[in-house]
Amino acid sequence: MERPLHEDVEPLGFLLGTWRGHGKGSYPTIDSFEYDEEITFSHVGKPFLAYSQRTTHPVKGFPMHAETGYWRGVGDGRIEIVLVHPTGIAEIQEGTVRGTTIDVVTTSVSRTSTAKEVNALERTFSLDGDVLRYEVRMGAVGLPVTPHLAAELRRVDPA
Amino acid sequence: MERPLHEDVEPLGFLLGTWRGHGKGSYPTIDSFEYDEEITFSHVGKPFLAYSQRTTHPVKGFPMHAETGYWRGVGDGRIEIVLVHPTGIAEIQEGTVRGTTIDVVTTSVSRTSTAKEVNALERTFSLDGDVLRYEVRMGAVGLPVTPHLAAELRRVDPA
Repeated sequence: MERPLHEDVEPLGFLLGTWRGHGKGSYPTIDSFEYDEEITFSHVGKPFLAYSQRTTHPVKGFPMHAETGYWRGVGDGRIEIVLVHPTGIAEIQEGTVRGTTIDVVTTSVSRTSTAKEVNALERTFSLDGDVLRYEVRMGAVGLPVTPHLAAELRRVDPA
Repeated sequence: MERPLHEDVEPLGFLLGTWRGHGKGSYPTIDSFEYDEEITFSHVGKPFLAYSQRTTHPVKGFPMHAETGYWRGVGDGRIEIVLVHPTGIAEIQEGTVRGTTIDVVTTSVSRTSTAKEVNALERTFSLDGDVLRYEVRMGAVGLPVTPHLAAELRRVDPA
C-alpha cells in the first residue's frame, strides 16, 4: 500500500528512488579504484528513508562495497543517519539539509572486534539537475580525514 | 550471477532465504503488542549475510519496526552483527554460532542525538525443524536487560 511521505522527511524527498552511476575511490594506504554503484532510497510513511547501496567492479561485475541504513528527518533542516558496512562498521552521522545539499559528519563510529580502525567519515550529497553527486572523506588507520570517494549517479527508477 | 556461499558464513547458511511469522513484544514501560514479521537473509559470495527485517501490525497492516544490517562469520564459531534501527540506534553484537543456535550480546550501542536511550540488546536465534525462533532482551530507559521480543517464523522463500 502506498503511503504519503512523512512531513519530517519531505526535505529528503528528492532522494527517493533508485540511482545508478560510477565512482572513484582513493586513500593513502590503498591503490585507487573505480566502481559502479546503485543506491536506493525508499520510505514507508514514517519519518525516515531506508537507504541501501551496492557497488560492483566496473569491468568484472563482482560485488565490492555495500551499506545499508536509515536517514532520519528530525526538523529544523537537521538530518541523522544510521548506517552499517559489512566490514563491521556502524556509523552515526548528523548534519544539515539545505535545499538539495546534505552535509553530515560522524558523531560515532563503532566497530566489531575484527573490523579495521575507522574513526571519522564526512559525507556530502547534492542533487544538481538530474545528477546526484556525493563525496566521502574518511579518517582511518591513524590518518586524518582525507578524501576517499566521489561518485555521480542518475535516477533510474522513481520512488 | 549466483555466487557460492563464502566458507566463513557456511555456519550461517541455514538462515538464508525469506522468513515470515508472528511475534509478541513487551517492556515494563510500554503496552504489550503483537506483530507480523518478515526477515530476509541473502549473500553475495562475501563473508557476511545481508539481513533485513520488517514488522507490520497484525490486523491493520501498517509498518511497525524495521532493522537492517550484516551478519559476519569470523571463524571459530564466532559471529559479529552490525545493524541499525530507523529509530536512530546502531548495534554491534558479538557471540557464537553452535549448530543452528546463535547467541549474541551487545558490545556497543550508539545513538543519534534524538534517539531513545538503549544500552544493551541480547539476541538468541535458533532453528528447530522448519521453525526459526528468536528472543530479544533489552536494557533501555534506565532498566536492566529485560525480555522484550519473541517470535516464530517459517521459511517462505529459499535463498
